[in-house]
Amino acid sequence: MSTLDLHGAFHVYDTTLRDGAQQEGLNLSVTDKLSIARHLDGLGVGYIEGGWPGANPKDTEFFRRAREELDLRHAELAAFGATRRAGVAAADDPLVAALRDSGASVVTLVAKSHDRHVELALRTTLEENLAMVRDTVTHLRAEGQTVFLDAEHFFDGYRANRDYALEVLRAAFEAGAEVAALCDTNGGMLPSWVGDVVLDVVESTGGRVGIHCHNDTGCAVANTLSAVDAGATHVQGTVNGYGERTGNADLISVVANLELKLDRQVLPQGLLAEATRIAHAVAEVTNVAPSSRQPYVGTSAFAHKAGLHASAIKVDPNLYQHMDPLGVGNDMRLLVSDMAGRASIELKGRELGFDLSGDRDLVTRITERVKVLENRGYTFEAADASFELLLVEEVEGHRPTYFEVESWRVITETGPASSLLPAGEAVSEATVKLRAGEVRYVVTGEGNGPVNALDQALRQAIGQAYPEVAKFELTDYKVRILDQGHGTDAITRVLIETSDGAGSWVTVGVGHNVVEASWQALTDAITFGLRRHHR
Amino acid sequence: MSTLDLHGAFHVYDTTLRDGAQQEGLNLSVTDKLSIARHLDGLGVGYIEGGWPGANPKDTEFFRRAREELDLRHAELAAFGATRRAGVAAADDPLVAALRDSGASVVTLVAKSHDRHVELALRTTLEENLAMVRDTVTHLRAEGQTVFLDAEHFFDGYRANRDYALEVLRAAFEAGAEVAALCDTNGGMLPSWVGDVVLDVVESTGGRVGIHCHNDTGCAVANTLSAVDAGATHVQGTVNGYGERTGNADLISVVANLELKLDRQVLPQGLLAEATRIAHAVAEVTNVAPSSRQPYVGTSAFAHKAGLHASAIKVDPNLYQHMDPLGVGNDMRLLVSDMAGRASIELKGRELGFDLSGDRDLVTRITERVKVLENRGYTFEAADASFELLLVEEVEGHRPTYFEVESWRVITETGPASSLLPAGEAVSEATVKLRAGEVRYVVTGEGNGPVNALDQALRQAIGQAYPEVAKFELTDYKVRILDQGHGTDAITRVLIETSDGAGSWVTVGVGHNVVEASWQALTDAITFGLRRHHR
Repeated sequence: MSTLDLHGAFHVYDTTLRDGAQQEGLNLSVTDKLSIARHLDGLGVGYIEGGWPGANPKDTEFFRRAREELDLRHAELAAFGATRRAGVAAADDPLVAALRDSGASVVTLVAKSHDRHVELALRTTLEENLAMVRDTVTHLRAEGQTVFLDAEHFFDGYRANRDYALEVLRAAFEAGAEVAALCDTNGGMLPSWVGDVVLDVVESTGGRVGIHCHNDTGCAVANTLSAVDAGATHVQGTVNGYGERTGNADLISVVANLELKLDRQVLPQGLLAEATRIAHAVAEVTNVAPSSRQPYVGTSAFAHKAGLHASAIKVDPNLYQHMDPLGVGNDMRLLVSDMAGRASIELKGRELGFDLSGDRDLVTRITERVKVLENRGYTFEAADASFELLLVEEVEGHRPTYFEVESWRVITETGPASSLLPAGEAVSEATVKLRAGEVRYVVTGEGNGPVNALDQALRQAIGQAYPEVAKFELTDYKVRILDQGHGTDAITRVLIETSDGAGSWVTVGVGHNVVEASWQALTDAITFGLRRHHR
Repeated sequence: MSTLDLHGAFHVYDTTLRDGAQQEGLNLSVTDKLSIARHLDGLGVGYIEGGWPGANPKDTEFFRRAREELDLRHAELAAFGATRRAGVAAADDPLVAALRDSGASVVTLVAKSHDRHVELALRTTLEENLAMVRDTVTHLRAEGQTVFLDAEHFFDGYRANRDYALEVLRAAFEAGAEVAALCDTNGGMLPSWVGDVVLDVVESTGGRVGIHCHNDTGCAVANTLSAVDAGATHVQGTVNGYGERTGNADLISVVANLELKLDRQVLPQGLLAEATRIAHAVAEVTNVAPSSRQPYVGTSAFAHKAGLHASAIKVDPNLYQHMDPLGVGNDMRLLVSDMAGRASIELKGRELGFDLSGDRDLVTRITERVKVLENRGYTFEAADASFELLLVEEVEGHRPTYFEVESWRVITETGPASSLLPAGEAVSEATVKLRAGEVRYVVTGEGNGPVNALDQALRQAIGQAYPEVAKFELTDYKVRILDQGHGTDAITRVLIETSDGAGSWVTVGVGHNVVEASWQALTDAITFGLRRHHR
């Protein structure tokens, strides 16, 4: 089935970058948004709502950079925005112009469909609101864009004034909107109510109906399915259920239920198996710790305390799981057994060019070590380079050593204004002592933070023995506090991404001391980079 | 309505202490379980499943101590256990005896209702399994206990062999079981499927039907409601949705939906308003960080990024929330975000006790300052205390000052093993120079990281002038790299939560230097705490 056919038959519409970004504490840079868009495209969604160009400078910038940098294989970009202002022609409204000029092939127009919201929030008449919908859709259609309508507060509006709510949808359809997505903006609906309303809308308007749910009753996924059952063919949601208040419908749960439970193919063949990887990759970008209990993709979603059932699980695992976890790229885990671990270590080794299958003891040793380290907070899923160094160490009997650290120290200080230091601004200074290639180096580096200063000093010192280090650049630095509730005494995990122009690699460090954890990741990064160049 | 009437009409059955405790990483002591039981009773649930006495020494101990220590006002205790073993009389089975002797007025017997599970996991015949159900129920009823049946894997079993699955329920009802709870043990069901099966069971057996759902499809709450709609009058679930894999149905969401959305009173009058407090109190006991997005009780569940809608929210808050948050003991919160307009700053000010409505210039100044700061990476959404200090500064013309920092310095170092320092382990030492109450202090503190050391030194110094600082405790520390893709040169945001036993507050710091950002948040935290005590 081609991507186009899928778009025709059923819309999977992601709004992580717009409605998901409304989540409290979530703050995405333009680069973050571009990175998430690539992941969403990798999942095969049909539409990616990128933001509100014109209303938000960051979103305007996103659409500009998307035109130049994004090469989407499956998805079309949608720009979100409002209908024209009251009393202004659509062509003269600068916010409508920003939608037109965004470069997005689809515009999703939010419109009021609840009479009281029109009067109180929009402060205009019901008639003018209909004209605003009609004019804006007509204008954008004439400019060649596809238009979807987001009918805000639709379900509450339908209860308050069914006729008017339907009138808004009809105005949009008549002006050429392709979809009217019914939004449960306040999130208070239950599945049977949603189903009844969608059925009525499909029958009354004859147009294509979409659904946009929030999770305030804990029913966002079920509400979405109920709408599809009643005839909706366009579902909106966000990765990991991000969103305001209790979040939006988790798009991956919705899609997995549609494909695996209801036998409706809504993503390009095979891409649902990327779901677990992508959900976690997006969580790395947002830096929101993923819930281990998340349906389908959570790390605990297929974890079994085997105990009593271990033998029955071996005979027939499907007696104890509702589906094959590989369908969403997840894996069954037996919490007491290391069987799952061994197999994945072998697989991972093969991926990195080590054939471990012949040596059971070696695999056991590596599996044990990984378990101990992950228990202490390390993660090797994200830090391939640190894992490869660990493999090399176990396979070859020793870690590759290009340099030997004697000691390091970093001072961060601030003070009253002086000729050297502006008032209140802190600077860091690091001293590293190490041996590389028979020579002892004592180097001091400065930086705007302790890790930056250590990085400078370390690379200056090693660069004298290995000039290729000059090409290495630290391209990403992430900190996560693992053990919350213990203040500054908690365990810290640092992930560092380094690039040499030709490729990049990620290393990990863990410890109570954020500086020490960073140091581990920094030295791993340089060691891995040197090994790449010296093989 | 009396508690007994409620039990008769509808059972709210909590299994946090038994099925909830199966959650990966959750580990409850007997004291923890007693404490959670008291909270559950405070919520007014009808039944508290305490565990499996006899199978698990901790649970045996729980029932023993519960008899002596628990004084339940609303709930009855239920002991969970299995039907007798194959080929043994119920009276002679030591595990059945443990249920009988537990002191619990209710026994919930788990029984296989899926033919293949009987054969593969239980390794007995279908006929013997029926006898096991019949005998065990009969025996415990004769001993004076109320018996509920948990029909394990019921929905899968019904699909595989409807007649046998129903036969198991009939055997239980005929022997005197009061409820047969249908368990979606693998969690793969969707609401419409659950509804159809429950309807058939109610019609075919005439007995009282219960429902026990897991969240593997993200539909546990909706599945439970669908069962109730089809005639179930007994709902099982756990607080905060704890449980194996993706967890059980969140009992508070279920109950809130039943009472607030479906007008069925299922808890004693007024107790649902305790839900938020109790959900958080239970999370304190389990030490599982609560999800801010949790329906009804999450800290974000009624949080609004006011922006555009602030003026309409002022007129009618119910336009923007699906219910009054006080109904579950939660509260509407307005977030101060970079979209924030003047109206939301005014509202927020009122929340914090400042009437800003009379002074347009002041509101403009604060709005502008918030925008500038949020653009630089600050977030006041999470950091109410830092926002309050900013408000005070603008309203009163100056920031509250209890101390004046002259300078600070922190050294983190490692080196070869010595008598002072184990090999490779880093320590941090901070020196802070400040004036407080006319006295100059120079204090050095040590810590396992730079921020920890600064916190120690800062509090030692200020504590000499303000002894109440000794009560302040740093309870959470979060670091986020805001501008990814720039390595260690990126902007860092630090959020610190501090508690004084009576309350807690969050402060924020931002900068290139993680240590400097932490320092800002630390000093704000102490300033805010001192202001609380000196007002």
